[in-house]
Amino acid sequence: MVKVSVLYPNTAGCKFDMNYYLEQHMPMVQHKLGAACKRMAVEEGIAGGVPGAPATYVAMCHIFCDSVEAFQAGFGPHAKEIMGDIPNYTDLSPIVQISEVVVG
Amino acid sequence: MVKVSVLYPNTAGCKFDMNYYLEQHMPMVQHKLGAACKRMAVEEGIAGGVPGAPATYVAMCHIFCDSVEAFQAGFGPHAKEIMGDIPNYTDLSPIVQISEVVVG
Repeated sequence: MVKVSVLYPNTAGCKFDMNYYLEQHMPMVQHKLGAACKRMAVEEGIAGGVPGAPATYVAMCHIFCDSVEAFQAGFGPHAKEIMGDIPNYTDLSPIVQISEVVVG
Repeated sequence: MVKVSVLYPNTAGCKFDMNYYLEQHMPMVQHKLGAACKRMAVEEGIAGGVPGAPATYVAMCHIFCDSVEAFQAGFGPHAKEIMGDIPNYTDLSPIVQISEVVVG
């Protein structure tokens, strides 16, 4: 199982519309990916590791797929539309990471 | 539900002993946290978001707890021992983030 993480860096004055993200963007991504997406998870950053420190990421989204190839096959044909929706909820450029799930 | 993420930045020449992490460190942390830890997850970074790009994080660990207070109560008394074990598997300084699980 692989996990595709989309991490939104918490920069000063950044915009992130969680309502739009949850109600519009995520369902659209899930629909486009179809069976390639086994599970999705979303988190909202609330704090850093030491008292008073801000969260490094304002939001994180994780898409679980059987393999990198399965993700690419599901995402590729819809990449333009999915990426094109990002400015509708944030002015951030997310960091994307693909990981192997070692303990799930 | 909150998620405490421990992210190990993928820097050139960094050391991360996944075997030690999975067989020694994680079970120790889970034991120390006890009932405060509802679930743990571990991932190994394999790629970035564009072809050929490295993963931003060489490894990520996530600890799920009922609340920030529950995590702090479980972690606090063992912080020194848990942090003291880090040099046994890595030379990296992890980024810690606490998030609210919005979609789990």
